[in-house]
Amino acid sequence: MAQLLSSSYSLTICSRNKPYLKPFKQCSTPFSMTVSCNNPKPSSRGFFLQEQKLRKHSLVVHAAAVSTNQETPVQTSSGNPFKPQRVMVIGGDGYCGWATALHLSNKGYEVSIVDNLVRRLFDHQLGLESLTPISSIQNRLHCWKSLTGKNIELYIGDICDFEFLSETFKTFEPDAVVHFGEQRSAPYSMIDRSRAVYTQQNNVVGTLNVLFAIKEFREQCHLVKLGTMGEYGTPNIDIEEGYITITHNGRTDTLPYPKQASSFYHLSKVHDSHNIAFTCKAWGIRATDLNQGVVYGVRTDETALHEELYNRFDYDGIFGTALNRFCVQAAVGHPLTVYGKGGQTRGFLDIRDTVQCVELAIANPAKPGEFRVFNQFTEQFSVNQLANLVTKAGEKLGLDVKTIHVPNPRVEAEEHYYNCKNTKLVDLGLKPHFLSDSLLDSLLNFAVQYKDRVDTKQIMPSVSWKKIGVKTKTVTT
Amino acid sequence: MAQLLSSSYSLTICSRNKPYLKPFKQCSTPFSMTVSCNNPKPSSRGFFLQEQKLRKHSLVVHAAAVSTNQETPVQTSSGNPFKPQRVMVIGGDGYCGWATALHLSNKGYEVSIVDNLVRRLFDHQLGLESLTPISSIQNRLHCWKSLTGKNIELYIGDICDFEFLSETFKTFEPDAVVHFGEQRSAPYSMIDRSRAVYTQQNNVVGTLNVLFAIKEFREQCHLVKLGTMGEYGTPNIDIEEGYITITHNGRTDTLPYPKQASSFYHLSKVHDSHNIAFTCKAWGIRATDLNQGVVYGVRTDETALHEELYNRFDYDGIFGTALNRFCVQAAVGHPLTVYGKGGQTRGFLDIRDTVQCVELAIANPAKPGEFRVFNQFTEQFSVNQLANLVTKAGEKLGLDVKTIHVPNPRVEAEEHYYNCKNTKLVDLGLKPHFLSDSLLDSLLNFAVQYKDRVDTKQIMPSVSWKKIGVKTKTVTT
Repeated sequence: MAQLLSSSYSLTICSRNKPYLKPFKQCSTPFSMTVSCNNPKPSSRGFFLQEQKLRKHSLVVHAAAVSTNQETPVQTSSGNPFKPQRVMVIGGDGYCGWATALHLSNKGYEVSIVDNLVRRLFDHQLGLESLTPISSIQNRLHCWKSLTGKNIELYIGDICDFEFLSETFKTFEPDAVVHFGEQRSAPYSMIDRSRAVYTQQNNVVGTLNVLFAIKEFREQCHLVKLGTMGEYGTPNIDIEEGYITITHNGRTDTLPYPKQASSFYHLSKVHDSHNIAFTCKAWGIRATDLNQGVVYGVRTDETALHEELYNRFDYDGIFGTALNRFCVQAAVGHPLTVYGKGGQTRGFLDIRDTVQCVELAIANPAKPGEFRVFNQFTEQFSVNQLANLVTKAGEKLGLDVKTIHVPNPRVEAEEHYYNCKNTKLVDLGLKPHFLSDSLLDSLLNFAVQYKDRVDTKQIMPSVSWKKIGVKTKTVTT
Repeated sequence: MAQLLSSSYSLTICSRNKPYLKPFKQCSTPFSMTVSCNNPKPSSRGFFLQEQKLRKHSLVVHAAAVSTNQETPVQTSSGNPFKPQRVMVIGGDGYCGWATALHLSNKGYEVSIVDNLVRRLFDHQLGLESLTPISSIQNRLHCWKSLTGKNIELYIGDICDFEFLSETFKTFEPDAVVHFGEQRSAPYSMIDRSRAVYTQQNNVVGTLNVLFAIKEFREQCHLVKLGTMGEYGTPNIDIEEGYITITHNGRTDTLPYPKQASSFYHLSKVHDSHNIAFTCKAWGIRATDLNQGVVYGVRTDETALHEELYNRFDYDGIFGTALNRFCVQAAVGHPLTVYGKGGQTRGFLDIRDTVQCVELAIANPAKPGEFRVFNQFTEQFSVNQLANLVTKAGEKLGLDVKTIHVPNPRVEAEEHYYNCKNTKLVDLGLKPHFLSDSLLDSLLNFAVQYKDRVDTKQIMPSVSWKKIGVKTKTVTT
């Protein structure tokens, strides 16, 4: 059925002293490669690439090592015979997905990445670019292999195409699937009708397909699904982790925590959560929903190894999130843009904790039929608090940081009660990286280093929750 | 842009004494028609048909009267200046939609039906048929016009096609949209992966499009959306109407009632509810979510006028619901099929109350920005209680009615607490038709009358919640 091609590669490994100062040289084709290494762990083993044309729209690239030294896989909690070893990271080319895939590979899991690379297409279409230059996924994986000897398989295709997804499951046979493979920007989902529909269709159908693939091909496979803290909205009571025990008219039950999402994107995650909960009950799927807060930071131990492994860093009005965007604004002398009053409070976490949390969820899988919900953040801040922190950190570096309050493009409470529980991941062993002066210094220095790449036209919010219309926006301003 | 065709019609009106005894003669083409009337209100006015080709996949048929005597439209609740007159019924060719469209037309509203007729296609594909022979939508509307002088505009197309939906809004300019236009069978959504995905995609995208059409073209338009009591599942506390006030750790808030749906169909309605709630808040949409129970019965005042107006009556394992199916089973001597223990309790209502509830919601619209939820049922029964009622009613008619408990194809609690509030529609003036001996007699007699049309192979459940797979089912048994 499949046409297999094998090619052998030769690697040139060298050292490089100033890895962060200039954009790296990209490899010109995936079939010849010069890797510049900062922290080389040179491997003299040859490896081969398998290209498997599954069908018209998808391409599977297996970059499989001839031999690898796998670390011992992380064991599961006591009493659970399920030992996950093979982890499929859907959306593994994105901001959180890429960092997670490398982290899991580093920890000894056999990792594959499934991605249709559409996040890169969004940048092209909207005229956006990551602050950091990012390498192609093929070069990223070649570099990782050359540095560590560890192989990550790559499946390029769309999980909404069930034929493609089936093949990835049958070929890779995952024990766990980490699902980051969704359109993940609230503003993107509010650009116009077609993006709203795309976001919900893409996210909901993709997740349904993953659930069916698990049921059909890998019924013991643990789904680790990225949700969002935004599913809960801002209720006037404490937010629990997924469920709340309610006593009403003299009777008591523990029920799913009520959802009040505030964009078509956040709503798509609410839909996913309900669909997953149902399949856990009906089919015995084991699933963990990670309701993640706003992620900041850019480096993890693994992405810092080499500039070809650098993660993306979004600062624009569509994909950039609060803290990262503020650091870039401070670096280029743009006022920090607080939307509305700035009392909006959310849960935040360092990307180094994202990868740690996912690893903990995989290593301690849900039981068959269990739909487990973890709130994945480490601290709460209001937008005003973040702006103050960045202002102070900037002043220490000699930056003149101003803050302006711009009309809020979103529909959200700007002053509200917010108290969320987040103990379940800590109970599993999470050691948080709290937001520190040194992290802020590092982020600001990082932004200063790349400030020549900043397109200041992309900083201000360009999408309005109230003005979204049916006409497809074809040109960005 | 549009090609208009006009045709004139001649009608032959006659009386008919036994309208329920035989299948009616169908008109051979939509351009010539003989109408047999039971309760004729003959009209000598000519009328014309406008066919407007909007685009390749959709066809608009305007059957507009040259002159009509409209009754005074129902007025709204005091203090609200919004007076709905023009009502678009999406899914107006279906079981609830058809009865509702006629009822609203009869009450003096200007009504249009928007439907892609896919419900009829499902019957073809699955080898199913309504117990009652049903006329084409074109003939139904011609008959209604001939009997009452009232015109119902017909727009044939798919609301997932936004270009089509836009044209219907711009042409008809609705004050209220009643949205029945969704795949509405839980078993259908559980046949296979492709039907599960179809159900969620069709229902969610269709509703998103309706919301965008209202925002863009008719911002005062009131959305009356058919939800389902199945959105709530079977919690161990009382079910409120859409919202619940929760006191938790010393603080209180009123939040959306937690959802625990138990099929991909029911889940699609949960997704819709969340999407609609968001647009009410963000855009000021006015919406009423009618969380309807299980509907029984077949005749309404309007559909009983003439056999060409008869409603569909589903008794099969896919689209047939409990009470209607039991009546058909009793009529043909098939044991009543109780799934599992039969303690499953649900809210039920007569189809005459469905049409009454929708009318009440339209006449008393939600305020701009309000997301109102009504639980639309009149009584609660367990499946065992229904079987007992049908058994007793059947015995009075000389039928030998047996009951069997078959393995439950669904995943649901078979013994549970169930107590749902349903006061909001009563507060607006609903006068319920409670399930009575006379209604059961009438339904059983109706089923006996048509028993020669029953295909007993279609009665048993054929879809399993646990066995659903990824392979598309192409042949029915």
